[in-house]
Amino acid sequence: MSQQFTVDSELLHSHIEELGAIGLDPTSGELFRPVYSHSWLTARNKLEDWMSEAGLEVRVDAVGNLFGRLPGETDAPVVLSGSHLDTVRNGGRYDGALGIHAALSAISAIAASGSLPRRPIEVVALCEEEGSRFTSPMWGTQAILGLIPAGAEERLTDEDGVTIATAMQQVGLTADRIREAARHDIDAFVELHIEQGGTLESDRIALGVVDAIAGLRNLNVTVRGGQNHAGTTPMDLRADPLTASAEMMIAVERTAREIGRPAVATVGQVSVAPGSRNVIPGEVTFTVDSRHPDEEKLDRMLEALETRLTAIGEARQVSVDLDPIFYRAPTPMNAEIARLIGEVADELGVSHHLMPSGAGHDSQLFATAVPTGMIFTPSIGGISHSPREFTPIEMITPCTEVLADVLWRLGNSDGDV
Amino acid sequence: MSQQFTVDSELLHSHIEELGAIGLDPTSGELFRPVYSHSWLTARNKLEDWMSEAGLEVRVDAVGNLFGRLPGETDAPVVLSGSHLDTVRNGGRYDGALGIHAALSAISAIAASGSLPRRPIEVVALCEEEGSRFTSPMWGTQAILGLIPAGAEERLTDEDGVTIATAMQQVGLTADRIREAARHDIDAFVELHIEQGGTLESDRIALGVVDAIAGLRNLNVTVRGGQNHAGTTPMDLRADPLTASAEMMIAVERTAREIGRPAVATVGQVSVAPGSRNVIPGEVTFTVDSRHPDEEKLDRMLEALETRLTAIGEARQVSVDLDPIFYRAPTPMNAEIARLIGEVADELGVSHHLMPSGAGHDSQLFATAVPTGMIFTPSIGGISHSPREFTPIEMITPCTEVLADVLWRLGNSDGDV
Repeated sequence: MSQQFTVDSELLHSHIEELGAIGLDPTSGELFRPVYSHSWLTARNKLEDWMSEAGLEVRVDAVGNLFGRLPGETDAPVVLSGSHLDTVRNGGRYDGALGIHAALSAISAIAASGSLPRRPIEVVALCEEEGSRFTSPMWGTQAILGLIPAGAEERLTDEDGVTIATAMQQVGLTADRIREAARHDIDAFVELHIEQGGTLESDRIALGVVDAIAGLRNLNVTVRGGQNHAGTTPMDLRADPLTASAEMMIAVERTAREIGRPAVATVGQVSVAPGSRNVIPGEVTFTVDSRHPDEEKLDRMLEALETRLTAIGEARQVSVDLDPIFYRAPTPMNAEIARLIGEVADELGVSHHLMPSGAGHDSQLFATAVPTGMIFTPSIGGISHSPREFTPIEMITPCTEVLADVLWRLGNSDGDV
Repeated sequence: MSQQFTVDSELLHSHIEELGAIGLDPTSGELFRPVYSHSWLTARNKLEDWMSEAGLEVRVDAVGNLFGRLPGETDAPVVLSGSHLDTVRNGGRYDGALGIHAALSAISAIAASGSLPRRPIEVVALCEEEGSRFTSPMWGTQAILGLIPAGAEERLTDEDGVTIATAMQQVGLTADRIREAARHDIDAFVELHIEQGGTLESDRIALGVVDAIAGLRNLNVTVRGGQNHAGTTPMDLRADPLTASAEMMIAVERTAREIGRPAVATVGQVSVAPGSRNVIPGEVTFTVDSRHPDEEKLDRMLEALETRLTAIGEARQVSVDLDPIFYRAPTPMNAEIARLIGEVADELGVSHHLMPSGAGHDSQLFATAVPTGMIFTPSIGGISHSPREFTPIEMITPCTEVLADVLWRLGNSDGDV
């Protein structure tokens, strides 16, 4: 059943460049394409044109997800591939968009081969994955899976107070019809995405086969000590919550390092009160973001963190409050699809290995409903959520060729993968 | 020449309570008495009444410093004692004010004894020592020493944009006459002040004889690393400026601890960019406030800090910029007056020891022009710049009795101390 498809690298490359310029502020160099904005609509219309040019049947659903369909010999459930069109503020041209480009390119290559798959294969441009306008991450995927809670369209607002219903109306959508976006005819989902980290590049691996999306535990840590005059309080009479917090931050880092890849733990926000140059702080708060694709190891990491932070607090006579504020369980990807991706990559001579995803993706939501797989391309310098995101076309093409063959094989499979 | 004076503890206590209620917001519990404000003027008028009641000759100078004079047998140069009436925002009732109360109480005790000193002895309530309204610390003392630069009255503004000239006008002063505040008839200055630290209390010493005011070196430290996604960037591929800064903060603390008392070094402000929970920071800035009364040791501490911070930056592959933004040289107090304070304390059975001041005071400016001495009372819990500042009257009275005898002896000395 396998056959190699020829991806049109040049066209793929020009699409990436052209779409990446939509939503780019030429003055600041910042790229931002929030859902239901003018730039988002312009980009979606451009994709619609390209899908039509590739001979696909184009459709926009009730929340604005865009589909391009290559019909199959039968109407058996669909193989879906794509990613999200929206970006974070000051984002890059690869995060999300590349998965749409690659799926379109792969399906175009299949269409160009003249052979029809048994099942329909569709490319999708999903919306509001990042949650950067309405803080409702994976909004488009939620709609497809019928997961949007009643009344969400009026409850969710952007930072200007615009409801998602109003924003939808401004791009020709009707919030009343959100529930019509739900689909029950999807049999598999495959998402290509940039790694957003630097391991593929540093390990010189061409393609990452995602085996799981990391679980996430977020903490807020509050450390309280004795606020006092920086000039008059001897070092030995201090209960400084900032130097205690500094020791805790080192402990957070050390704990993740000791567990080893792919464990990560990050302090990203710090707030110091009162925050005067000549005052020993009274209170410090900081965040901890810890992730691991293995739930047991994630739990063990958190336990180690709690033990260490508490011990540092006791030794330094400051109070420590650990407030767990968010938990997301690890999500395994479908093992059969992962095996298939590896198999195709082997056949096409594309180096690959299994790896977890540290970031969240639409795939983690799809995986709760349908067999789901993910392909990572390298990210140069491991940079993401930045205009400096980059993956050269020479690294994108082989991954797209693997995607094409994976979609073809899934499209010709007998039934549930 | 020595004689013990009896301080009126009860009156002293009631003055502290009464003045401490002026500028206190009964709702928030915050005390703030900025120079030239209504509360400052109310407090100064109250002090004026008390000085008159004690039989002193009262005078307000061109910038609003208030003097109460006990005439001497001669018009030989004056012995001056007092401190500042203004407070920091959310300050306490002892910092500054106690030095005025103690001087008034001491001079009243001398006056009540019926003996006239050879020289006049004056109590002074100084203004804007804290610089909390016009960021011009020791403004009143600058005026007395003739140090106010030309045009300062129009250049200096408060946070509402009010010039110091306008603010002076609102309390009946004329900025044109600032230079008339300069005095050339002062022979010695003695300031009683709370320690603002916890060493006297923890060491169970009743009185501190200040031998020097610490020198101060302030740094701004900027650490830059690789901003990236907290979920996708493995620990071993990070150049995290925040964990590097945390290690530096520990090094700042350790360096001061190793040098030992009275060395102090404090990080009071931290700023993390971009400051998102799920983003490894790209840039961290923090302040270092380091103090030592011995200039050579202060320099050595700074050298050690620079070496350590630079080494941490190199080991962690982040860039480190050290920006020295402020330097104040250590100021020794007059050794003769310090010896005299200790001698009197011995005679009165008040336990004491020599110690540096970590904080700055009017005395450091007076010391550049006239022989100057400082007496520290304990601060309970080492708390200052807070409504919780407290020194019990039982600890204040013995220090005030020492002050009275010191002023008496200086007032009867033959000439320059």
